[in-house]
Amino acid sequence: MNPPDPARLSINTATLRAQWDLREIVDALVRHGIRGISPWRDQVARLGLDETARRIRDAGLEVSGYCRGGMFPAVDRAGLVAARDDNRRAVDEAVAVGARTLVLVVGGLPKDAEGRPASRDLGAARGMVRDGIGELLDYARDAPMPLAIEPLHPMYAADRACVNTLAQANDLCDELASNDGAALGVAVDVYHVWWDPSLEREIARAGRHGRLHAYHLCDWLVPTTDLLNDRGMMGDGVIDLARIRGWMEAAGYRGMHEVELFSTRWWAEDGDTVLSTCRERHRRCT
Amino acid sequence: MNPPDPARLSINTATLRAQWDLREIVDALVRHGIRGISPWRDQVARLGLDETARRIRDAGLEVSGYCRGGMFPAVDRAGLVAARDDNRRAVDEAVAVGARTLVLVVGGLPKDAEGRPASRDLGAARGMVRDGIGELLDYARDAPMPLAIEPLHPMYAADRACVNTLAQANDLCDELASNDGAALGVAVDVYHVWWDPSLEREIARAGRHGRLHAYHLCDWLVPTTDLLNDRGMMGDGVIDLARIRGWMEAAGYRGMHEVELFSTRWWAEDGDTVLSTCRERHRRCT
Repeated sequence: MNPPDPARLSINTATLRAQWDLREIVDALVRHGIRGISPWRDQVARLGLDETARRIRDAGLEVSGYCRGGMFPAVDRAGLVAARDDNRRAVDEAVAVGARTLVLVVGGLPKDAEGRPASRDLGAARGMVRDGIGELLDYARDAPMPLAIEPLHPMYAADRACVNTLAQANDLCDELASNDGAALGVAVDVYHVWWDPSLEREIARAGRHGRLHAYHLCDWLVPTTDLLNDRGMMGDGVIDLARIRGWMEAAGYRGMHEVELFSTRWWAEDGDTVLSTCRERHRRCT
Repeated sequence: MNPPDPARLSINTATLRAQWDLREIVDALVRHGIRGISPWRDQVARLGLDETARRIRDAGLEVSGYCRGGMFPAVDRAGLVAARDDNRRAVDEAVAVGARTLVLVVGGLPKDAEGRPASRDLGAARGMVRDGIGELLDYARDAPMPLAIEPLHPMYAADRACVNTLAQANDLCDELASNDGAALGVAVDVYHVWWDPSLEREIARAGRHGRLHAYHLCDWLVPTTDLLNDRGMMGDGVIDLARIRGWMEAAGYRGMHEVELFSTRWWAEDGDTVLSTCRERHRRCT
């Protein structure tokens, strides 16, 4: 395989959230010659939406995704409406910053007021996700803002996302927007899907329908010591990143390669060290 | 649904490995009126195989499974042969203790001498698993000892088992023993498969082929604080255990309900408390 084009490297701002605010991250990306960014809503809110949009535009950065919409399930009608309204705001913000797609982390089991699971009915939660995406889709088409369903690793099924395989995300796209991959597609994050024996087939399926909206990179460490914040830098784990990139490219993906690294270890590093490592590992290990 | 028959409760001996040796566990099961056991090889080795078989037989316990065979992938021919030979010994031991099935935890990526992953080729590891089971099957048929492939949660794909869904296990059974569910089937552990949107369908598929050899219980806690040893007692987590039992029964399963609880929290409890809790939770929460 050819090495990846360095111009495709994008940095998800969660990767540097412990070191820098969004303004500093934008400046650092320019300093390192990195062309893409994917900001999180909380960081955007702190800097201000207009200020964020202006700084990203002035820096000439491509916005590979906006993080994030989703979290559809709720225990009651008021909760569902609140999720709907918040997701519409997320669409508007994604448009304002010029994002290629709004990434959807769909939510798990509905939660009570203390944030604990309030149900064991995973099938019902999946129904709420389907309905929530279906409703948001009308709003997002008008914006227009492409939506990307991100299947999350099955270890997050209860508390973060009950869409847990790319097949399941593809099925949802078939059901809700069968012939409109531009409006509703998927985000392929290697951390969540690398283990899936159907991965190559489902990437190809998504590609045939024009659904490959985003591609996220990090690595799976052995051992993994924490379910949330122990993701690995590319090359430090066991994921065959070049092979998966090959599947993405064979399926027609030509978008950015976005590094999204939730890692206590890398959050403790100097931000410039993180970025230079991302550049070097992207070139050498993916 | 009807409540589960208390006579179907079985205890996997890992659940009590911190409190008692195997002799004490057998005595405790009798004391608590529990009818089933599933011993681990290391515990059997400490008590002695003949002594274990005699004590289990004298106690009138049903052996719902023997833990475990598997770990097929290896970096070289010597490693593959060592795995083959060790698996044959596991078959012999399972016969000696009168187990209903030998549970196979198939192994992940091949490991180097220090136990670290020596490859990123998950597809190749899966090929070694297929070949290893195929070879063991001939030996196990002669024994005779039914084999049960246990799909493990995707978070163990790299280091413990690269068979990660029930669909994948069913596919392996189709390939290796399509018309012989009695020789090669599956072990359904709720902890590993509860999240799977295909679970009901794949349980039914396994049932149609007579492949449902074992059913393991515990629960998924939210939050889960450790990837290995933070399983929950039935009722303390988010798995809809009654629903999954319903799917098992609808698919024809009439075997034991085996509690397998890797839990630092429950290993710190008095063993009799663990067993009385297992009995009560089995009746009330599954």
